[in-house]
Amino acid sequence: MALIVQKYGGTSVGSPERIRAVAQRVAKWRRGGHQVVVVVSAMSGETNRLIALARQIDPDPDSRELDVIASTGEQVTIGLAAMALRSFGIEARSYTGTQVRILTDSAFGKARIVEIDDARLRADLDAGVVPVVAGFQGVDAAGNITTLGRGGSDTTGVALAAALHADECQIYTDVDGVYTTDPRIVAEARRLHTVTFEEMLELASLGSKVLQIRAVEFAGKYQVRLRVLSSLTDPDLPLAEESVSGTLITFEEDEKMEQALISGIAFARDEAKLTVTGVPDRPGIAYAILGPVGDANIDVDMIIQNASVEGTTDFSFTVPRGDYQKAMAILETVRTHMGARAILGDNRICKVSMVGVGMRSHVGIASRMFRTLAEEGINIQMISTSEIKISVVVDEKYLELAVRVLHKEFGLEQAG
Amino acid sequence: MALIVQKYGGTSVGSPERIRAVAQRVAKWRRGGHQVVVVVSAMSGETNRLIALARQIDPDPDSRELDVIASTGEQVTIGLAAMALRSFGIEARSYTGTQVRILTDSAFGKARIVEIDDARLRADLDAGVVPVVAGFQGVDAAGNITTLGRGGSDTTGVALAAALHADECQIYTDVDGVYTTDPRIVAEARRLHTVTFEEMLELASLGSKVLQIRAVEFAGKYQVRLRVLSSLTDPDLPLAEESVSGTLITFEEDEKMEQALISGIAFARDEAKLTVTGVPDRPGIAYAILGPVGDANIDVDMIIQNASVEGTTDFSFTVPRGDYQKAMAILETVRTHMGARAILGDNRICKVSMVGVGMRSHVGIASRMFRTLAEEGINIQMISTSEIKISVVVDEKYLELAVRVLHKEFGLEQAG
Repeated sequence: MALIVQKYGGTSVGSPERIRAVAQRVAKWRRGGHQVVVVVSAMSGETNRLIALARQIDPDPDSRELDVIASTGEQVTIGLAAMALRSFGIEARSYTGTQVRILTDSAFGKARIVEIDDARLRADLDAGVVPVVAGFQGVDAAGNITTLGRGGSDTTGVALAAALHADECQIYTDVDGVYTTDPRIVAEARRLHTVTFEEMLELASLGSKVLQIRAVEFAGKYQVRLRVLSSLTDPDLPLAEESVSGTLITFEEDEKMEQALISGIAFARDEAKLTVTGVPDRPGIAYAILGPVGDANIDVDMIIQNASVEGTTDFSFTVPRGDYQKAMAILETVRTHMGARAILGDNRICKVSMVGVGMRSHVGIASRMFRTLAEEGINIQMISTSEIKISVVVDEKYLELAVRVLHKEFGLEQAG
Repeated sequence: MALIVQKYGGTSVGSPERIRAVAQRVAKWRRGGHQVVVVVSAMSGETNRLIALARQIDPDPDSRELDVIASTGEQVTIGLAAMALRSFGIEARSYTGTQVRILTDSAFGKARIVEIDDARLRADLDAGVVPVVAGFQGVDAAGNITTLGRGGSDTTGVALAAALHADECQIYTDVDGVYTTDPRIVAEARRLHTVTFEEMLELASLGSKVLQIRAVEFAGKYQVRLRVLSSLTDPDLPLAEESVSGTLITFEEDEKMEQALISGIAFARDEAKLTVTGVPDRPGIAYAILGPVGDANIDVDMIIQNASVEGTTDFSFTVPRGDYQKAMAILETVRTHMGARAILGDNRICKVSMVGVGMRSHVGIASRMFRTLAEEGINIQMISTSEIKISVVVDEKYLELAVRVLHKEFGLEQAG
């Protein structure tokens, strides 16, 4: 008998029919002898509807009141899901974040979990009851309702699994796992049976939006076994099959049976790069350039500073394409201030990254990547590396080609 | 400076525009130097939408979970109303029933308020903040969300006014007060400036559905001054004018300046009457007849038992017309059991009632009522009286005529 926390996202609870399918699935796990805690999101579209309603009152709504409103989305779903479970003969009881007592700080709209009181949930589990907990929400020390920010239901699931020392946290979603790359680009893309937390973090931040990155960080920190699996399979799929489906995100590299060099290839479209050339090479330069960009709420991704030549250096970084013009204007002001030579830019670029814990112990991965791209005539404009990732910036027209040739070169289509 | 509790119903907060109008009105009271606590219902239609959603999961939904779902309607409105107040420059903060701590019993769907913690509200009022409280909901001792039943927001308003010893509880609604009778039947019907709680109870139960009867009872018990007034007037109506508008429901008869004999004429359509004739006159007869009717969840209204003649009596009562056939079938079974003579019935009747504390000290009101009806050729089928009410059952075709001639006979169109 295992203790499982199952989280179902907005699409998985998007209609009464889908909620019944969730209940059917949970009932199967219960009848298989497992203890289950269910975490649900708001029905798909509901959070957006509530926020739009609030913006009709105030385009810049008060954050405390917005959380009071937005948190009702999950509150409706827990009631419906608990009812559906009961109609399948499973004892169930719903809990808001306040009722569990998921204590958070008071950062409305982006609160962080401080502590979870497990007393009520433990009592339910001991009594054979399935607690159905509202994701995405908590309560601060003063009793105010808080939300964890968009997608925060994943974090609720992981945090509950950590607090209850659950055997596994299962994130049911509308994809069936994490892939070696986007199957829309490479038909041979293969689902990974296991992936490490570090790989998952790199893959998540690079665009494989299967899991919220904060939830993955949380799972890594508290060593929660995390599994991403599909809520679209037959709810009556045999337990033995379902329990090994999807992708397991593990903190133990030994559990990762596929010892491939590379786990996946991520990419980001719609990027732009900016370069300041002839920057006087002195302390504080990076801040002088990036400070004003950050102040303008522009997300900066790759940052590269070349070696100094004759007392000056070149400084490059990438931003989302939509912020390109704004960033250019800011840099122009910065340039005159610091006496740099020129500002160069290109808003037709993309980023391709290879991720894998295997590359740690293998030299030559980078050169093999660069050679593969060169053979296809793809020019590399920027390079950035970390222990388990190599990213390159290339012309956006080469994105699909680059992903495809790398996927083939590193044999990702073959089971590990 | 007065402390006012203002309750706004579903129509009054039915859209973002209407919520802004509420905020504008509250802002006016604040700027007039008053302390205000606001109680709001769910936006009109919202509670029905939520209940319909629950019934899609389970046609007979679990009552605890239904309250979890239904209570979100008011939770959305408090957030929106608090935002709207802030946008008018008024400090405001929303509270769910749980957050105030409106402690109730655990009768989900029809909970009763046990106690209200006024600490947070007092602190807000002292700090110049307007608390915006969710109507219709509370929390039981175990932390479960409860609802007070449909229309319970009026009760929340009155209960808060009692707990805070407010100077007045104002119920803003889509009518501008309590009338001498339905203006759709008598064009000369006049708004009452004041009415006593007892009169209000009789008028409410007889169909003047301006206020929930439980709220009126609550106000009477805790001696809360209650005012029904319109949320459809210009929000910028001068305070001096608005504060004496609507109808004041008072526990002090002295405050009732209009010393009319009769305050109003209520009526009920769609009634049916049933009579059991030749009932053996012995103890337990009333229960033997009405017990099975009540068990079938049929509401019985007027009950009349005539004097015994030769050891038998006739027993009559009225029921909603929709329950007529069901009641007839039940009585037929009862009749054979008790050996009564026959069952008579009429499902084309209505009830007309005159209500007024003034009739207590005046004899002859009843005979004047009967004479007026007789002069119009209206036959009275049943009569029932209480200290402040006389009700008659007549053929439904005479309803409008009866109300009109009585309204005129007792001079209700003239200001008191």
